[in-house]
Amino acid sequence: MLSFTLEEYQERLGKTKEKMAAAGIDVLLISDPANMNYLSGYDGWSFYVHQMLIVIIDEAQPIWLGRSQDANGAKLTVWMHQDFIIPYPDEYVQSLPKHPMDFVAQILTEIGQSNRAIAVEMDHYYFTAACMEHLKQHLPNASFKDGTNIVNRVRIIKSDQEIEYMKRAGAIVERAMQAGIDAVQTGVRECDVAATIFHAQISGTEAYGGDYPAIVPLMPSGIKTSAPHLTWTDGTYKQGETVILEIAGCYKRYHSPLARTLVVGQPALQVVELSEIVIEGLNETLQFVKPGVTCEEVEAVWRKSIAKHGLEKESRLGYSMGLNYPPDWGEHTASLRQGDKTVIQENMTFHVIPGMWFDSFGVELSESIRVTKTGCETLANFSRELFIKHPTIHSAS
Amino acid sequence: MLSFTLEEYQERLGKTKEKMAAAGIDVLLISDPANMNYLSGYDGWSFYVHQMLIVIIDEAQPIWLGRSQDANGAKLTVWMHQDFIIPYPDEYVQSLPKHPMDFVAQILTEIGQSNRAIAVEMDHYYFTAACMEHLKQHLPNASFKDGTNIVNRVRIIKSDQEIEYMKRAGAIVERAMQAGIDAVQTGVRECDVAATIFHAQISGTEAYGGDYPAIVPLMPSGIKTSAPHLTWTDGTYKQGETVILEIAGCYKRYHSPLARTLVVGQPALQVVELSEIVIEGLNETLQFVKPGVTCEEVEAVWRKSIAKHGLEKESRLGYSMGLNYPPDWGEHTASLRQGDKTVIQENMTFHVIPGMWFDSFGVELSESIRVTKTGCETLANFSRELFIKHPTIHSAS
Repeated sequence: MLSFTLEEYQERLGKTKEKMAAAGIDVLLISDPANMNYLSGYDGWSFYVHQMLIVIIDEAQPIWLGRSQDANGAKLTVWMHQDFIIPYPDEYVQSLPKHPMDFVAQILTEIGQSNRAIAVEMDHYYFTAACMEHLKQHLPNASFKDGTNIVNRVRIIKSDQEIEYMKRAGAIVERAMQAGIDAVQTGVRECDVAATIFHAQISGTEAYGGDYPAIVPLMPSGIKTSAPHLTWTDGTYKQGETVILEIAGCYKRYHSPLARTLVVGQPALQVVELSEIVIEGLNETLQFVKPGVTCEEVEAVWRKSIAKHGLEKESRLGYSMGLNYPPDWGEHTASLRQGDKTVIQENMTFHVIPGMWFDSFGVELSESIRVTKTGCETLANFSRELFIKHPTIHSAS
Repeated sequence: MLSFTLEEYQERLGKTKEKMAAAGIDVLLISDPANMNYLSGYDGWSFYVHQMLIVIIDEAQPIWLGRSQDANGAKLTVWMHQDFIIPYPDEYVQSLPKHPMDFVAQILTEIGQSNRAIAVEMDHYYFTAACMEHLKQHLPNASFKDGTNIVNRVRIIKSDQEIEYMKRAGAIVERAMQAGIDAVQTGVRECDVAATIFHAQISGTEAYGGDYPAIVPLMPSGIKTSAPHLTWTDGTYKQGETVILEIAGCYKRYHSPLARTLVVGQPALQVVELSEIVIEGLNETLQFVKPGVTCEEVEAVWRKSIAKHGLEKESRLGYSMGLNYPPDWGEHTASLRQGDKTVIQENMTFHVIPGMWFDSFGVELSESIRVTKTGCETLANFSRELFIKHPTIHSAS
């Protein structure tokens, strides 16, 4: 059931250990499910309980440690020998007297790691403040370090197999976006459009099925387009409403996000004008992306483009993404914004999302891209336009 | 757009403040999105960045604090006056030099709360170890307390309106489960069954649409039924395979989970026998549930029932649930297991899930229940049986 060759997992592990050595880390405790998957292959919806992948710098195989009922899932999905799967008893699950990190500390002590330099992912979703407190309490002789984003920074450059998976995700999102645009009509319920999009995302193509994206369809309409992260209601679309669809295709946990804006009927002039500005800025930005330029230089192209029209965007223009689990498909490494001096390299992948939100409306139109040897290519092919659902004066001009 | 009356939100806030007062807490920082929603109405997929609801014991309205681009979403969904919505600039998002908790500390200082007893949700998903470190660093005069599950313990008793929403979720899960069972056939891809289930979950009923459940369909088949938390692949179902479907309906973020097991073709004798034991144990357990008994007493009924057949289940039998966001629909308060002395009360709601997993197969068959004045009722009505997808010797007997 492995999604990659054993060699690829070992190469990832080797690069992680190089970064550990450079930072003086002996033991890296990984609670981010994407990082666990990246290094071990582990895949299961078990990240709602505490679990960890333990990378020890002088051990060839990492240790999967999780809830006892998930150990069989680990056996079925990881590349390591099953001796490296350590289950904790169910009494540790969401229990006040016992915390899973007490068990982790006990195992680290038993295998002689309790007095080493131990790094934890300080700012990752599933490593809570309580985890830190319990580890410190039970490992008084360890020296703790911050391992935030160590594995994420290995993930930032994708392999050919990862790019292939992201292109498959791109083919899936093309279908899901088209299904969504086709389904939006006056009088149709937002939830029915969401259901149609989900069906296309999960069913995938004839050749390969879809995985669940790390974020559900974001699809505000009307005044709700002033806010990017609203989902849907069971209300119906009204004539003249603007609708934003921000969705992803996902294949083996690899994402290809895509956003488009559409209008049910006659669009307001401000929506048409804003869309044109966004498309022009996005085009100019994508033409600029290539190995050797920095993230902030990419953002500056966009900034200059929209400044011609008197506009500014406070929020970042995009971010590195790929492998992930809920609640985010972003990778939390490079962002396209002022101050980010990350140098763009071949096989980095970004979601470039020039969303513009005002007090009563907004427009989003995005592309997921791979950096090539000389420029960039989009992971999906989808027309870059404001979609108008009924022929109107504007579309007939 | 509020899902409940203003009075209901204020009653929730009042009960929260009573618990704060009892624990000597002046300021409660809430990062759990379900708790934020419960007290303020806030609903958006923005919990992948740091955000908070700040409850101050002597202030009538809580403060929503989040990313600037989500402030419009807060304005559209919370009951508080918009002066109580405080956005932080985008440069704090997933950024190394600046952490959103630095901003939270600054606001608390500006409004005179920096030297009070401040509680944080130490073991909730979205309150990371780094959050704690940044708050402590920037609020040296505060005394910090653990506010884990303070709001969750208010949530454990549902109002009539909440029960109504959970019953709607029950009606949705009946449809989704039937759609899933109908779709499973030899040669059909698992992803296509998942897509069918998603469509039914999100589309909902004619009267009301579905919201996204906090957990995606868990649907292991064949040997993968030995593990409860695997999702799906694009492989096809084989003759004789056992398939577990654990899914939920969701309405306005309230859940009604349901699990059933089915067999494609002729079931193995061990699966038939295990299903009968599980159904008998579940029936006996549900007959016992009523106000006044404890969680561990409920579990003991199940334990005794399966012990007659020489079986034991290590993991808990169920848990309180209702309102939630990914990655869990569980509430993290009461569990049906040994040692949990929580006294069952009217309008508590549990997912009773007697899943049994062995090394090569497993069976799950669950019910979501509401405790009534004298016993309990299920939130969905769905036949409690092992489903067999093609007539076989067994089903014709």
